[in-house]
Amino acid sequence: MSSEFRIVIVGGGFGGLWAAHALHHAPVQVTVIDRRNHHLFQPLLYQVATAGLSPADIAVPIRSILRRRKNLSVLMAEVTGVDRAARVVETGSTRIPYDALVIATGTTHAYFGHDEWRPFAPGLKSVEDALFIRRRLLLAFEEAEAGSDAARRTALLTFIVIGGGPTGVELAGAIAELAHKALARDFRHIDPQQARIVLLEAGPRLLASFPDRLAARALRDLESLGVEVRLNTAVESVDEEGVVAGGARLAARTVLWAAGVAASPAAGWLGADSDRAGRVKVEPNLAVPGAPEIFVIGDTALVLDAAGNPLPGVAPVAKQEGTFVARLLSARARGAPEPMRFAYRNAGNLATIGRNRAVADFGWLRLTGFAGWLLWAVAHIFFLIGFRSRLMVATEWLWSYITFGRGARLITGG
Amino acid sequence: MSSEFRIVIVGGGFGGLWAAHALHHAPVQVTVIDRRNHHLFQPLLYQVATAGLSPADIAVPIRSILRRRKNLSVLMAEVTGVDRAARVVETGSTRIPYDALVIATGTTHAYFGHDEWRPFAPGLKSVEDALFIRRRLLLAFEEAEAGSDAARRTALLTFIVIGGGPTGVELAGAIAELAHKALARDFRHIDPQQARIVLLEAGPRLLASFPDRLAARALRDLESLGVEVRLNTAVESVDEEGVVAGGARLAARTVLWAAGVAASPAAGWLGADSDRAGRVKVEPNLAVPGAPEIFVIGDTALVLDAAGNPLPGVAPVAKQEGTFVARLLSARARGAPEPMRFAYRNAGNLATIGRNRAVADFGWLRLTGFAGWLLWAVAHIFFLIGFRSRLMVATEWLWSYITFGRGARLITGG
Repeated sequence: MSSEFRIVIVGGGFGGLWAAHALHHAPVQVTVIDRRNHHLFQPLLYQVATAGLSPADIAVPIRSILRRRKNLSVLMAEVTGVDRAARVVETGSTRIPYDALVIATGTTHAYFGHDEWRPFAPGLKSVEDALFIRRRLLLAFEEAEAGSDAARRTALLTFIVIGGGPTGVELAGAIAELAHKALARDFRHIDPQQARIVLLEAGPRLLASFPDRLAARALRDLESLGVEVRLNTAVESVDEEGVVAGGARLAARTVLWAAGVAASPAAGWLGADSDRAGRVKVEPNLAVPGAPEIFVIGDTALVLDAAGNPLPGVAPVAKQEGTFVARLLSARARGAPEPMRFAYRNAGNLATIGRNRAVADFGWLRLTGFAGWLLWAVAHIFFLIGFRSRLMVATEWLWSYITFGRGARLITGG
Repeated sequence: MSSEFRIVIVGGGFGGLWAAHALHHAPVQVTVIDRRNHHLFQPLLYQVATAGLSPADIAVPIRSILRRRKNLSVLMAEVTGVDRAARVVETGSTRIPYDALVIATGTTHAYFGHDEWRPFAPGLKSVEDALFIRRRLLLAFEEAEAGSDAARRTALLTFIVIGGGPTGVELAGAIAELAHKALARDFRHIDPQQARIVLLEAGPRLLASFPDRLAARALRDLESLGVEVRLNTAVESVDEEGVVAGGARLAARTVLWAAGVAASPAAGWLGADSDRAGRVKVEPNLAVPGAPEIFVIGDTALVLDAAGNPLPGVAPVAKQEGTFVARLLSARARGAPEPMRFAYRNAGNLATIGRNRAVADFGWLRLTGFAGWLLWAVAHIFFLIGFRSRLMVATEWLWSYITFGRGARLITGG
């Protein structure tokens, strides 16, 4: 109707950014709020954690991405709540009124009720998480080199990844390559090739969202990189000394968490119904039941497919949901008929294990080995946002591919 | 004599690294100790602070640089002292014996007895310093955009650099370009082009180590970038609200310190004589008086030129001193005659102000403007360590030169 229709999007991840993009020509005023100043390309965050990429290679300022959208402003602020009655988003310092609200705040780590494991098993969601993990990984080798008794050295050179989904598989493969290739010749008192990388998965197989055959291939690929994969091995406890899993203690100074996530606290802000993982249950049009002006998308939403299964927490789902909500709100602002029901078009499923090793599943096409890896690499360059990220990541990868090196082996912070 | 001649080098900066390099073929065992795992190319650190480069572009693991030196090992540890009688370097956890010791531990910031200014005027020495300054710079614009009263907004958009040496000039120019070019179109409620950048210098001119004509040109170049340069303006106090200088208060939320350095505490470890800036007074062969087995080089040493003036704290001095000490110790290990006296060959002096603007002084050749800048850029690519850093910095610079953008505009940490 008029350009006074105010849309607030909370979260500058894939869901929020795609919604903002698709509202370009709509007669609306858009405000994107994020507590970070940057959009993070999370699919490659594990490469920052394993010293292959720099944060700036995969993180771009949200306001620079959306610079040309004249109907849009970006606010860096932490949302603290939503006043549904007043239709206002609250941050620490301001209140931002909306006619429609899009929540796309993603997930955080979840430790299955064992929050006491958190300090000993960091997860991977933010740039800070990745730099913290990078520091832990590289320091373990430095401390082992500096000298200690054999037991401590073994624990320092044992790396445990908990969770056999895509993130766990990618992390374990990348750590194995880091230890066995990039660091191989740099030490005098230890042999990084002796490092143990252990991947623990509670279920009977890796990559639950992939077909059996591809999961089995990923297992073989990981083992060929020297990763010990333990299936059907639930973690019982995590502490400073390592992990107890499958009834046995594994001494390790570095334990990484890739096992579980929970939705951000958006359900609490909205007083909305959520599932055990905190995901908000939404209508077929992604609106919150009883609040047709509030939408939840991406990892924060529980959206069921035609078979009644929840859609996975992956980028293509969030992007398509963001675009759908933008189309819906664009129609609403114009007074046109709104689309009634979001339907996910499966964009395929990719996971990489390491150099020349990946699995790709498009239903009609399944690729493994070098072909899968090449597709994975090209797809990720393509999906990166902006020419600069593509240029920098492609340059880093080319260098790493030729030299087997890792370009960002810095121990900082701490 | 034998390969049992043990040399310990403390510090993996230019001095320590060049010494280690030049000991390659000597019959000695070398240990390089640094509290960081990386060598940092400090001449470009201001570009990390101003969001142009990533830390990993200019920082390389010391053990990876020295990987092929088979007579050498690298230890990441913090040196806590030197036991001169026992000829042992002490770290928190170990004691490392030496036959010859090379101290190359560089400098830290000095606030001329006003350590209370430190929290309000961070300096630039480490990767962490640079990321902290980057965060402060970028957050100032975000906070101004998020809205506040006019006085606070003015203070947020005022950036003061204290000190008109090369680092201060480079920082001020880079902040001006960041505000006036890279950020120019990204905000809705503020105009980054209105940002004030003020460079304060207590002395009568900029770049004291350059000829008058080049310093005057640097001043004009800075002013053409929109930097307000105030000469003969000593800082009287620094606090959360800004600076008092030349009798007047300047309100600014971001104040950066580029005015003074002091040597690392090496003089204290050695019980050696030092000047006011903490630099150890050394013999003509760079040995500590009364301790012919201990050498101090780089910014930590006070070395006089033929005219009796101290050599400046720049990379070429440290590199040449490192190479000199390596030649001396190589001769000593072989029982050959040692060189008696270090002499500095002036390698020229470069400082950049911004895009297409730099000053270069080689005595016989002086360049300014585009020619100076091109020389500056080529020289810095050349001097970077390793093919990867050259590739990444050249790629970043090419992208920035074409787009006027800054590739690492991330607010992290904090």
